[in-house]
Amino acid sequence: VLGRDYGTQDCSIARSLEVVGERWTLLVLRDLTFGLRRYDELRRSLGIAPNVLADRLGRLTDEGLVVRRLYQHSPERFEYVLSDKGRGLAPVLFHLAKWGDLHYPSPLGPPRVSLHAGCGGSVDERLHCATCDASVWFDEIETAPRGTAQTDGVEAGAPAAPAVG
Amino acid sequence: VLGRDYGTQDCSIARSLEVVGERWTLLVLRDLTFGLRRYDELRRSLGIAPNVLADRLGRLTDEGLVVRRLYQHSPERFEYVLSDKGRGLAPVLFHLAKWGDLHYPSPLGPPRVSLHAGCGGSVDERLHCATCDASVWFDEIETAPRGTAQTDGVEAGAPAAPAVG
Repeated sequence: VLGRDYGTQDCSIARSLEVVGERWTLLVLRDLTFGLRRYDELRRSLGIAPNVLADRLGRLTDEGLVVRRLYQHSPERFEYVLSDKGRGLAPVLFHLAKWGDLHYPSPLGPPRVSLHAGCGGSVDERLHCATCDASVWFDEIETAPRGTAQTDGVEAGAPAAPAVG
Repeated sequence: VLGRDYGTQDCSIARSLEVVGERWTLLVLRDLTFGLRRYDELRRSLGIAPNVLADRLGRLTDEGLVVRRLYQHSPERFEYVLSDKGRGLAPVLFHLAKWGDLHYPSPLGPPRVSLHAGCGGSVDERLHCATCDASVWFDEIETAPRGTAQTDGVEAGAPAAPAVG
C-alpha cells in the first residue's frame, strides 16, 4: 500500500498519493471515469480480488471522490459514481495515458482515443484539438475505445465515455 | 507493489502505472524534478529504506526515466538526473500537487508554488499565469518552496527548481 506512509511529508503530491496512490486505486478511478458504475462491472474489468475492490471503493467513498448510490431496493444494490472531487483527477489520468501511449505504445495504436466533446476532434497530449484547432480543457474531453471513434474514419459506434482517458 | 500486475490490460494508464505506480516511485521522481541528484540527498528527503530507494532508482534507470552519471572517480560516486522521458511525467506531478493543494490543503498554504519561468508569475491549476495572463505549458513552469517565491511578496531567496511541482 503505497498510500499511507507519506503523512509526515509537507507535500501536496504526497498527500494526494496517500489517497489515490494505493495499488489499483487509479485504475478504479479510470473505470469510473469510463462510465462503469457497478461493483460486478468493475470487478470484471479490473480482474482484482473482491476484497481489494471493496476496500478501494470504501476508501474512495470515505474521502469523497466517489458517491455510493442505491439503484435497486430489494435486494439493495449500489452503484458508484465520481464526485467533482473524483473528476478532479481527470488530468492525472489523461497525462498518464498520453505518457503511456508515447513511451509504451500498443502495436495497434492507443487503446483509447481522446476526443473534443461535441467537435469529435482528436485531442493531443498538449490539449490541442486537431479538428477545430482549439485549446481544450479536461471537462471538454471524452474518450472512446480504439476503433469506435470518428477519428478512426469509422462512424461513431459505442458512445464516448463522459470524460478523460 | 502496485506496478507489476497490470500487464494484461490493454490500457496506457495501466502501462504507465506498471513503471511509476510502485510505492515511492512518484516521490522519487518528484525529488529529482526538484533538483535533488544524489543518493544521500534523496534518502534524507524521502526517509525510505536504502534498499527501496536503490530498487526504485534502478528500475527508473532501466526504463530510461533517469540517467545515472558518474560525478566522482575515487571513490566512484553517481548522481541521478531525469531524462526527457522522465520529465514527461511533469504534468502528472503538477496535477497531483494542485489536486492535493485544493482538497487536502496545508494550514500554511501550498507547500510549493508553481511559477512561470522568467516571468515569475503564479501558475494556477488551469495553467494560467496570474502575472502575464499567458497560458503556459509544463516546460515553462518552475516550482519553489512556500515562502521563497516572489509571489509571497518576499524577494526570491532559494533558486527555483528547474521544473514542475
